[in-house]
Amino acid sequence: MNAFELDKRLEGDSVPVADLPLSTVRLMNERSWPWLILVPRRPGLVELIDLDAAGRARLMEEVASAAEALRALYRPDKLNVAALGNVVHQLHVHVIARFRTDPAWPRPIWNVKPKMEPYEPDALSKEVGRIAAALGS
Amino acid sequence: MNAFELDKRLEGDSVPVADLPLSTVRLMNERSWPWLILVPRRPGLVELIDLDAAGRARLMEEVASAAEALRALYRPDKLNVAALGNVVHQLHVHVIARFRTDPAWPRPIWNVKPKMEPYEPDALSKEVGRIAAALGS
Repeated sequence: MNAFELDKRLEGDSVPVADLPLSTVRLMNERSWPWLILVPRRPGLVELIDLDAAGRARLMEEVASAAEALRALYRPDKLNVAALGNVVHQLHVHVIARFRTDPAWPRPIWNVKPKMEPYEPDALSKEVGRIAAALGS
Repeated sequence: MNAFELDKRLEGDSVPVADLPLSTVRLMNERSWPWLILVPRRPGLVELIDLDAAGRARLMEEVASAAEALRALYRPDKLNVAALGNVVHQLHVHVIARFRTDPAWPRPIWNVKPKMEPYEPDALSKEVGRIAAALGS
């Protein structure tokens, strides 16, 4: 039986925030948006429908928790939720706080900027702490 | 109490396929991708977290049914699932069959093409019939 291992690209682009019962929650190191990814810790998942119904229900509740945390902390104009995975195949769900003033609005955030703009290290730690607290972990 | 009314832009861009217990399923009239939208038939929804937990669980199962139908019919390389809503605020979930040969791959499909390419009317009817059958309706 294979163990879960986080995809190397997801690992490099993000930092750990919290572990929920099913998913690891990570913050993308891109300061333009409060942008979480949830990665279910089961090996071999690619599609949402690779999860069984109980796993899908659990993932939906964890997505909702992440969305509630972002809404409480950042008061966004809109939340975006997506499972795409055309580049990184390991199942992961994006939960992103969007603002009318953000650099991609109203478009989706992908492929808008040529490269990621990382947080300053102190700012990154602070955001991780705030989000982890809002997730109740 | 307000009744549910489909957003006019969603209505104009898509055609009806089936009604599931919570959501209306529609096919986007864009032949570049087999592209469904699921619109929960409750008034006033904008975010996934505007649905209660039972509604979210139901929506997840309907998304899974739509994804299974697209996978069975079109054998895509990847499924994309997203609730964005920056332009049309009425809660709707995109379920899209993606192919390595499609005009946006590996990017998300939004903002890639300047305008939608509608199906020929006969092809549209045929696809709607196949998807409705695959959804078991």
